[in-house]
Amino acid sequence: MNKRKICVVITARPSYSRVKTALKAIQAHPKLELQLVVAGSALLDRYGNAVNYIEDDGFVINEKVFIVLEGENKTSMAKTTGLGVMELSNTFYNLKPDAVVAIADRFETIAVSIAASYQNIPLVHIQGGEVTGNIDEKVRHANTKLADIHLVASEEAKTRVLKMGEDEDFVFNTGCPSIDIAYEVSRNPKLDFNPIDKYGGVGKKINWQDGYIVVMQHPVTTEYDQARENVYNTLKVVHELGIPAFWFWPNVDSGADGTSNGIRSYREEYQPENIHFFKNMIPEDFLRLLCNSKCLVGNSSVGIRECAFLGVPVVNIGTRQHGRARGENVIDVSYEKDAIKNGILNRIQTENRIAKDTIYGNGDSGEKIADILATIELRYHKTIMY
Amino acid sequence: MNKRKICVVITARPSYSRVKTALKAIQAHPKLELQLVVAGSALLDRYGNAVNYIEDDGFVINEKVFIVLEGENKTSMAKTTGLGVMELSNTFYNLKPDAVVAIADRFETIAVSIAASYQNIPLVHIQGGEVTGNIDEKVRHANTKLADIHLVASEEAKTRVLKMGEDEDFVFNTGCPSIDIAYEVSRNPKLDFNPIDKYGGVGKKINWQDGYIVVMQHPVTTEYDQARENVYNTLKVVHELGIPAFWFWPNVDSGADGTSNGIRSYREEYQPENIHFFKNMIPEDFLRLLCNSKCLVGNSSVGIRECAFLGVPVVNIGTRQHGRARGENVIDVSYEKDAIKNGILNRIQTENRIAKDTIYGNGDSGEKIADILATIELRYHKTIMY
Amino acid sequence: MNKRKICVVITARPSYSRVKTALKAIQAHPKLELQLVVAGSALLDRYGNAVNYIEDDGFVINEKVFIVLEGENKTSMAKTTGLGVMELSNTFYNLKPDAVVAIADRFETIAVSIAASYQNIPLVHIQGGEVTGNIDEKVRHANTKLADIHLVASEEAKTRVLKMGEDEDFVFNTGCPSIDIAYEVSRNPKLDFNPIDKYGGVGKKINWQDGYIVVMQHPVTTEYDQARENVYNTLKVVHELGIPAFWFWPNVDSGADGTSNGIRSYREEYQPENIHFFKNMIPEDFLRLLCNSKCLVGNSSVGIRECAFLGVPVVNIGTRQHGRARGENVIDVSYEKDAIKNGILNRIQTENRIAKDTIYGNGDSGEKIADILATIELRYHKTIMY
Amino acid sequence: MNKRKICVVITARPSYSRVKTALKAIQAHPKLELQLVVAGSALLDRYGNAVNYIEDDGFVINEKVFIVLEGENKTSMAKTTGLGVMELSNTFYNLKPDAVVAIADRFETIAVSIAASYQNIPLVHIQGGEVTGNIDEKVRHANTKLADIHLVASEEAKTRVLKMGEDEDFVFNTGCPSIDIAYEVSRNPKLDFNPIDKYGGVGKKINWQDGYIVVMQHPVTTEYDQARENVYNTLKVVHELGIPAFWFWPNVDSGADGTSNGIRSYREEYQPENIHFFKNMIPEDFLRLLCNSKCLVGNSSVGIRECAFLGVPVVNIGTRQHGRARGENVIDVSYEKDAIKNGILNRIQTENRIAKDTIYGNGDSGEKIADILATIELRYHKTIMY
Repeated sequence: MNKRKICVVITARPSYSRVKTALKAIQAHPKLELQLVVAGSALLDRYGNAVNYIEDDGFVINEKVFIVLEGENKTSMAKTTGLGVMELSNTFYNLKPDAVVAIADRFETIAVSIAASYQNIPLVHIQGGEVTGNIDEKVRHANTKLADIHLVASEEAKTRVLKMGEDEDFVFNTGCPSIDIAYEVSRNPKLDFNPIDKYGGVGKKINWQDGYIVVMQHPVTTEYDQARENVYNTLKVVHELGIPAFWFWPNVDSGADGTSNGIRSYREEYQPENIHFFKNMIPEDFLRLLCNSKCLVGNSSVGIRECAFLGVPVVNIGTRQHGRARGENVIDVSYEKDAIKNGILNRIQTENRIAKDTIYGNGDSGEKIADILATIELRYHKTIMY
Repeated sequence: MNKRKICVVITARPSYSRVKTALKAIQAHPKLELQLVVAGSALLDRYGNAVNYIEDDGFVINEKVFIVLEGENKTSMAKTTGLGVMELSNTFYNLKPDAVVAIADRFETIAVSIAASYQNIPLVHIQGGEVTGNIDEKVRHANTKLADIHLVASEEAKTRVLKMGEDEDFVFNTGCPSIDIAYEVSRNPKLDFNPIDKYGGVGKKINWQDGYIVVMQHPVTTEYDQARENVYNTLKVVHELGIPAFWFWPNVDSGADGTSNGIRSYREEYQPENIHFFKNMIPEDFLRLLCNSKCLVGNSSVGIRECAFLGVPVVNIGTRQHGRARGENVIDVSYEKDAIKNGILNRIQTENRIAKDTIYGNGDSGEKIADILATIELRYHKTIMY
Repeated sequence: MNKRKICVVITARPSYSRVKTALKAIQAHPKLELQLVVAGSALLDRYGNAVNYIEDDGFVINEKVFIVLEGENKTSMAKTTGLGVMELSNTFYNLKPDAVVAIADRFETIAVSIAASYQNIPLVHIQGGEVTGNIDEKVRHANTKLADIHLVASEEAKTRVLKMGEDEDFVFNTGCPSIDIAYEVSRNPKLDFNPIDKYGGVGKKINWQDGYIVVMQHPVTTEYDQARENVYNTLKVVHELGIPAFWFWPNVDSGADGTSNGIRSYREEYQPENIHFFKNMIPEDFLRLLCNSKCLVGNSSVGIRECAFLGVPVVNIGTRQHGRARGENVIDVSYEKDAIKNGILNRIQTENRIAKDTIYGNGDSGEKIADILATIELRYHKTIMY
Repeated sequence: MNKRKICVVITARPSYSRVKTALKAIQAHPKLELQLVVAGSALLDRYGNAVNYIEDDGFVINEKVFIVLEGENKTSMAKTTGLGVMELSNTFYNLKPDAVVAIADRFETIAVSIAASYQNIPLVHIQGGEVTGNIDEKVRHANTKLADIHLVASEEAKTRVLKMGEDEDFVFNTGCPSIDIAYEVSRNPKLDFNPIDKYGGVGKKINWQDGYIVVMQHPVTTEYDQARENVYNTLKVVHELGIPAFWFWPNVDSGADGTSNGIRSYREEYQPENIHFFKNMIPEDFLRLLCNSKCLVGNSSVGIRECAFLGVPVVNIGTRQHGRARGENVIDVSYEKDAIKNGILNRIQTENRIAKDTIYGNGDSGEKIADILATIELRYHKTIMY
């Protein structure tokens, strides 16, 4: 029997973390063959070089596709996407997959959707149905309308995808595969490595052993000009509080340079003695670091998903996670310095871990995804249900 | 007061016909400035060279953008779209419009949507909410999810767009501007020109003065391999019936070569004495030709829209117009020769014109569109309504 | 021992014919591994679908790359080239060849040269040093300046490449591999197939058994507007002379539609009873057809190269082969009808075959090329010699 | 009388400086109309944002074109070039220039040459005929072979272009327009501004008033992996010597990140107290800064050209300027620390300014260029002269 060829396209470091267990499960499934394409910022050093982690994890990459345009404005985002469509069309034509998997809502993911759907290749969309209120949301729902099969991460998301007119026979709540990793980590959450020794990073050698926070703040694309100011506020607060902090560099986005610039120039000017900066970490280590932290500060979706499962307190800043279902662990604050400060003070005083919440799955997402991909009818033809 | 700059992108001949009165109304509106971009097949001779008609109609074109890839497979459709994104991104960056208008559902229209929405330019989508059941439908709904403002052509379409989660303050039923031209033609429908003298075309000089039919059959993109066989069937039936017929060449599409090829080789082999072939015609002349015909045969959306308003009988072949609201004038048939033959015989026996139907508007669509564009809040930020 | 990976990029049908024996020799060489990329018009039905012949000949294609833009103007030529650079860059990045081979002077070949040289992959250019006086010549010499190793087809070409400042240790006269096929054919030149039965084609079934001519006329890119008129003249002359003729469709070029159009409309209007049209033929059959013809008419480089070796009389029309070394078999004429007519009458009266001329090689070119590729130092660094 | 439309494409900050006086002269010429296109790294903040200087100088930009791909490998260089071809083709199609001007040898300049020459637009190449021994040299000579008109900067360059087979009626030694600015500065070379106050920059506030050196070191693209180490060596030497130094950030290049990275991490680690870093400066100010410096260190072409005219001592490191005609002011050294150190010590001991050298022009280059462009036959057809 021929195995179904499932082509997954990874375009960014966080997307890889999010689907890693699904990739493993596809690879291990007797009826599936994994075709792995790495594209976009996942290939680039200044966005964390996800490609190295992918190869270190033992995956064979079928094709690497360079598409990221430079630029400080949104034109580069759009052009990156267009280039992605052109190149991925050729990639899929040559790989001849039985299905293509597009992940979530990053701007360039619509390139995956177009390149597959226009060539009549059944398109699977992972993590549709969530809301964020900016260009990501537009992209996410457009992906839903181009996709034939929907693997969503929560019941709320499933309801939304069905309301948009999709066929319930092709919409499944699998949970989020990122929770699978959190599940493994949660079984033995001890911090078994020294972050600075293992990952280097830049900045002072902070005294994290007695308690620390983690910060990860991404630019919000529709608030481009404010990216720099916003990250400056967070830096100021964390610096002034003096709590030891591990700070993670943002992903690529239209405003990336704004945020990165803000961080760079703050460091240049103040050389904050309580902050150590990392570019990235393998997901298991990152989650373990979170498990042992006082709280996570910023606007990463990790705060909403993995931290809910792990019971890690989160200070969620601004609008980026707007509209996503969240657990008790999260407190939402504005970009104001006082708000951020109070949020952090509130969260780090939480005596005990917060109860785990399984809204985004309970640890078997990757396997569920592989099983569905192995058995579902692979169609590329659909119509709206009303 | 600064005029609002409204950038409309025309990518194909039929799209131009469909929005021509809206373009005129935008141009004439005291608060609007029209920026006209012509791209894709609208620039190419073998798809009817719409650009010439546009310039003959007195429009000034701000930029011409070449994006159509050659190819007999769907890869070229996808790549054309990707190239469209890249180039239109730059075009919009340089033109700095206050809003961009994307039209309907052709595959490359999503390039317009991406290039605008990713650059935070308010995106207006014309003719969302209709259903067709193939890649066009996916594209149409994806356009809806990327667009900020929706100008739809029927109540049915409006209901569907709202169900998909759009904000009712930004969804308007304007009718279809193509009906505006039909309205003008219907006020004096006499055939005031000799089609062969005016447009040349190829094939025998048929005796159309005593009654004729019009044929227009496009390839259906998800049935690529059958395009040739399907058009062959229709040719055979029309040839055998012996009724004088004006046959219009199809637009560009992934299967264009299949259909064009079918027509070419049928002509080569049989030289049908009752069929005359045209590449295209200006819309007014085309509608006038339809008004005076016994019926329209094929799968053009003109049969569904303008012919409903004009009361012209239509034999609609196959799935292309699947799911669109239709009037009494239409009879649907399969690709089978017998079905097509019976359909034509049924329609040409219709004694009188069929009653007009205003489901797609009543002749003032262009002005409605311009008025809305002049007054609506131009936003580029939205979230799903549920 | 690792084999050297030699990546050859075929972008058009005639380029394939020209290097076929070199491909065979590379494939057979114990120290070489062939990586074959097929791109551009070689993938397209309307330009002869070379890809089918390549696969029928038993070659495995590593990657297919769609790059041809549609258009009636030169913009599409330029854009096709740009797209070629982008996609081939990625192809080479993924295939990791030890050397890339670019062929001759077609406009898109500079894409191969850029994609290789910019990535520090040693670039081999085949058939530099010839002159033609139009954009092809500019491209050919630009390829020479980007290339590290030069395999030219004649002594004259070698001299020219050296004069341009290339290093003589990296310039070799291998002859043209197309002559290798001519050599094989010349050893047993009998016409062992019925051209119409084997290849179909369109037009009347001509009586070729008692003598025929062959015509192959390509558009000349810098004389775009005249392409149609020029081919019309040749058609008229051949039609009026009444000699049975096999006419071959042109390759893709900016003017392709002009020429193709001219042919199509002439056929439509006159249905010439003495001309049969083919899209293409496998090279061996084509050469055999030439061997048994009265003469070749047109502007194909086959007339200059293979026909010199085979001793087939040639009427070379216009400027396309301007400046290339030619044998006694060629008579040059202008685009005027009288000139063409007199040329044909002159050539078909040639009693005997003309003496063979080995200016473009003597039949072992493919092997010479493979041997050089297996042993030459593969450098990507050079400087001009003066 | 219609003015000739001359389209100049600026793709990088140093290219702008090099042709600024020619742009002024074209703009001022009664028979010429300037069309200015800004593309590539000239639009990007992290490469000095040349576009701001261009607009501040009062030029109107006809179109801005984003083409720079991100990447740490050479693939991005190639893709940037391909994208440049595609977009500039469209730009030229829409602007309809009478001639296009391509500048020098940066990798993406071949995109300008292809987009113009393939569309039969007469192509003018500025600064052909020089040698450098890496990919830049390949590009430069390929530009020469695509160009119709050659405006070179020295007699040596002219000789070389002629040897390559160009027609002497279309080759002119105009000198380098960068010398025009040097000429103006040389008439009143006093340092009339405080560099740190005017340009900010980063690093310590050095005591430059009593003498300083200037450093500008670019990555050498074919020595990609060494870029970081090389710049580290220079930093170490300058740091250890303790002489106040103004250090200029490099341009974009495939190795840019290597060099930039080296600078960044050196600063991070050592915080050198005698070095102040700038991103860029307007050319006049930069030359004035050089005029008053003890010497220029690095591998910039400014050391070869402007500094020859100004008589500023130069320590030229490594191979980047290999093969270019140089004046007495230059001492060449290797990448070794000792060599660099000795070079600097040698140059700063030079008692007096070195005699001016006019090998690259004497201050009227811009006007010469405009005059030639206004009168030369604008052809797009050529053939090699042998």
